[in-house]
Amino acid sequence: MSATVKTKGYAAKDESGKLSPWEFERRPVGDDDILIDIKFASICHSDIHQEKGHWGEQQYPQVPGHEIVGVVAAVGKNVTKFKVGDRAGVGCMVDSCMECDHCKGGEEHYCENGATKMTYGMPSEAEPTGITQGGYSDKLVVRDHFAVHIPDHISFEEAAPLLCAGITTYSPLMKEQFEIGDKVGVAGIGGLGHMAVKLAVSKGAEVYAFTTSADKVEDIKSWGVKEVIVVDEELKALQKYAKTVDYMISTIPYEFNLGAYVACIKPGGTFTYVGMPKASSITVNNLALAMAKVNYNASLIGGIPETQEVVHYCADNGVLPQIEVINASEINDAWEKVVNKDARYRYVIDAATF
Amino acid sequence: MSATVKTKGYAAKDESGKLSPWEFERRPVGDDDILIDIKFASICHSDIHQEKGHWGEQQYPQVPGHEIVGVVAAVGKNVTKFKVGDRAGVGCMVDSCMECDHCKGGEEHYCENGATKMTYGMPSEAEPTGITQGGYSDKLVVRDHFAVHIPDHISFEEAAPLLCAGITTYSPLMKEQFEIGDKVGVAGIGGLGHMAVKLAVSKGAEVYAFTTSADKVEDIKSWGVKEVIVVDEELKALQKYAKTVDYMISTIPYEFNLGAYVACIKPGGTFTYVGMPKASSITVNNLALAMAKVNYNASLIGGIPETQEVVHYCADNGVLPQIEVINASEINDAWEKVVNKDARYRYVIDAATF
Repeated sequence: MSATVKTKGYAAKDESGKLSPWEFERRPVGDDDILIDIKFASICHSDIHQEKGHWGEQQYPQVPGHEIVGVVAAVGKNVTKFKVGDRAGVGCMVDSCMECDHCKGGEEHYCENGATKMTYGMPSEAEPTGITQGGYSDKLVVRDHFAVHIPDHISFEEAAPLLCAGITTYSPLMKEQFEIGDKVGVAGIGGLGHMAVKLAVSKGAEVYAFTTSADKVEDIKSWGVKEVIVVDEELKALQKYAKTVDYMISTIPYEFNLGAYVACIKPGGTFTYVGMPKASSITVNNLALAMAKVNYNASLIGGIPETQEVVHYCADNGVLPQIEVINASEINDAWEKVVNKDARYRYVIDAATF
Repeated sequence: MSATVKTKGYAAKDESGKLSPWEFERRPVGDDDILIDIKFASICHSDIHQEKGHWGEQQYPQVPGHEIVGVVAAVGKNVTKFKVGDRAGVGCMVDSCMECDHCKGGEEHYCENGATKMTYGMPSEAEPTGITQGGYSDKLVVRDHFAVHIPDHISFEEAAPLLCAGITTYSPLMKEQFEIGDKVGVAGIGGLGHMAVKLAVSKGAEVYAFTTSADKVEDIKSWGVKEVIVVDEELKALQKYAKTVDYMISTIPYEFNLGAYVACIKPGGTFTYVGMPKASSITVNNLALAMAKVNYNASLIGGIPETQEVVHYCADNGVLPQIEVINASEINDAWEKVVNKDARYRYVIDAATF
């Protein structure tokens, strides 16, 4: 297994936000690695942000994609976690130091040695292209620890979005330890938001969904929420919900008026922001935050054990993303729809079409 | 007591940040009001922000000042809280609805009916000048509830800064319920910061003081802190303190690199911002906040019962601000020094000089 792995995928070649077919090589399968024949990879708004350079300059060509599922096609000699033929999934990270307290504690995304390696676009000497390359492709070589098992009772295409949209919303929701009947607000009902809604409903919360898209109302209602609030441009719709929810999670992937949403939370409640806008920054009005007596925090994905947990939870409880399967040639069109809020709610690429 | 009250003070006449003598009238002493012969009023950075229009357009002439102490000179017929001759203090607010849950619960600054009236610059039909006028003056008419008692065992001039700098730092510190030996960081060692340091030390915390002024080090050490960190422009000094403190309070009154300070807090800890920069807003880097796993909140002053509490606590425990008494004619000079970080640490105006 010392040969590099020929891979076909779709790559960004520049900041245009347009992808095109690209053939490249991945590192040979190492002793701790597995090779995955990718079956599906889904599209996250983060893919678009990163390839357009919103979070900093990128090296191109770069293959995005961090919601990846497939079948194990080879394993390194030290690997015991997987065997050939297993169903496997990979999310936002592919390596870390594995020695610090955070890594050992299953929070590899907070590696204290700064060695968390994101799935695409991170410098990597081992990779022939010099950077990690993501899941919009037909093959992936990854350290075994960073893949999770996909149980048989969930389809590949429905499992894919759990690897980022699922874990990123599940992790802060679990940390909040809300009780059955607590009121949970979800702001922004896209790929992440619709999973947040479904997870919170499944965990027994009374869910208030805040969306700017009136044509999503019927979908959202069908997921068992208490109320859907269609937010107008002047945010007037929010005023009626002052101090209503115990907790709110926002998945809005661009800068927005935080204060108006924070005002919907009861005093002493918490607002978690998981959407990462341009430059990862947002303007916070301290007066609004102080008046609302709300705590503000941000959350990133989740560790590997918790990623495994959410996959099992969703498979066992039928908490499934609403998806649309597309061919590789439709990626650019799908990206435009994601940006224009026209995705319903996750595009999943069939890797057989690369 | 139906006559308006002739008052001498110093007022801002425009956004220049320059004050000049001004004679004006206050409302007659009403049934629930007391008249205070002001003895001292101290200078808060907020006075400067507001008069310069940093927080929005102002009506001029406007007399700033919300750290006010003096002697009760008259009381309205319903007043039982004070009698003539009592020592009294007034802070940042002078009225609220007094009927909502927050007001009844002693959190008048969070009045649910939005009726919290700040001490200066707020529209007020009762006032002959049309707005509330603050403490840089020789007399004040105020609703009795919004004045607190100043015990005999603290000097007027040392009590004045407690009415804003004291309560604004005391309130979030008490909310944090830190334990003896917990590590508390204080960022920004000016009027508010130096009270935060002294209060946290007095409550048993191990205090880490972060200042950009090297010449404050000896002063700060004398207040019993564990360490003083002189922060350089590149913020390199902060790196050594990654994940060090359990809690941090910032009193920095202008926009700063929040992420670098947040990184000094242990995961799961809280960062409270009590300084109000221009437009009350600050840019938060969500990535930094998520990586640090720190909660962010903001806090405004404190309610009247807690203001009374901090005055007693400081008087009883000798937790006293470090002050410099000045004459009214020195106010403009003092304001410049506050802006240039040259105050050590609170200027207190002798009201006999208006």
